[in-house]
Amino acid sequence: MKKAILAVVLVITLQAAAQETKAPHGYTYGTKEVAKSPFTLEELKLLEQSLLFSEEDVKYLQMSHDILEGQTDAILDVWYGFVGSTPQLVYFFGNTKTGKPDGEYLAKVRGRFKMWILQTAEAKYNQDWLNYQYEIGLRHYTTKKNKTDNVTSVPVINYRYIPALTIPVTTTLKPFLAKTGASAADVDKMYNAWVKSVLMQSILWGQPYMKKGEF
Amino acid sequence: MKKAILAVVLVITLQAAAQETKAPHGYTYGTKEVAKSPFTLEELKLLEQSLLFSEEDVKYLQMSHDILEGQTDAILDVWYGFVGSTPQLVYFFGNTKTGKPDGEYLAKVRGRFKMWILQTAEAKYNQDWLNYQYEIGLRHYTTKKNKTDNVTSVPVINYRYIPALTIPVTTTLKPFLAKTGASAADVDKMYNAWVKSVLMQSILWGQPYMKKGEF
Repeated sequence: MKKAILAVVLVITLQAAAQETKAPHGYTYGTKEVAKSPFTLEELKLLEQSLLFSEEDVKYLQMSHDILEGQTDAILDVWYGFVGSTPQLVYFFGNTKTGKPDGEYLAKVRGRFKMWILQTAEAKYNQDWLNYQYEIGLRHYTTKKNKTDNVTSVPVINYRYIPALTIPVTTTLKPFLAKTGASAADVDKMYNAWVKSVLMQSILWGQPYMKKGEF
Repeated sequence: MKKAILAVVLVITLQAAAQETKAPHGYTYGTKEVAKSPFTLEELKLLEQSLLFSEEDVKYLQMSHDILEGQTDAILDVWYGFVGSTPQLVYFFGNTKTGKPDGEYLAKVRGRFKMWILQTAEAKYNQDWLNYQYEIGLRHYTTKKNKTDNVTSVPVINYRYIPALTIPVTTTLKPFLAKTGASAADVDKMYNAWVKSVLMQSILWGQPYMKKGEF
């Protein structure tokens, strides 16, 4: 009897662990499904220099990881609140049949968005990370938009809104960076590192929109 | 004799005034030489909303005007210092015949860059302003790069570096905003308004790089 109970407990624990670590729908980071970025790590270094992104920014992004980890849902509530109340943005989540925002589409993206917060804070700029930036770009562009989540929506996110979102994303993040007792100076440095990182990523997501020699 | 001296003084004064107000080479803001922007003022409003650009930002940009007006040369020294010491940026000012940065090209752009500082601080978002953003975009792109200054240089500025420069431009501007005695709170608000404005402009300059429905 004791053995049977132990077995049940074990199964439930393993299921819970699997649930916990299960990748969100369409989250293919580091897998063979992600194509190699046409943009190289050497080119990334040069881009970093041009936006004053330094080792100190990596350090402060990583400091933000544990601060943000337990707050991702609250952060996403704020971001989704902003997108939801800005018609020109929620438009890109619209179901072209019903003309209304597609709740399932929004929910699926949200699962990956959470991973994006943590990955931005990890700040590990290796080939996998670079490839995934390209993948994210493709999913904003006509190449892959709607496909990952199998939805009927508008065919492309107009690029101009992507770097623009650097501002609301980082402005609303700042209070969360301050919530667990970091000093005002550290909060400022984490915030500045986030601004640079989000801007840099939004630039990388522009690759598919432009010819290689013009991007 | 007195009359003759007066006449000479008058001529010199008028010459100096003309020199002072003479538009820099290639500066065509508000003239018929500037084409109409394919992007509308209504679309600009929606973009402003998406990056939380508000009337308050306009107010703080305008507050920065008189603070910056006497410092434009010092600011441009810092910006040119950064570009000059960053090979992947000064590259775009390279003379393709000599392989070296083109001093005359850099100097001509600098004259217009000064006007850009003051215009950013004026924050008057009318049709002339919008048209000129498009013109600036064309001058970064293959359409018009090198033509305004009649130089032999690389054919296009890779777009990725344009929004990236928001960071060095605004980071190095901040001390100048603080130099004439504004409160720390006002300096922060002017700085934040500048970040939004520079990012927004760099986004608008991306128009020629992308198809209309994708920009």
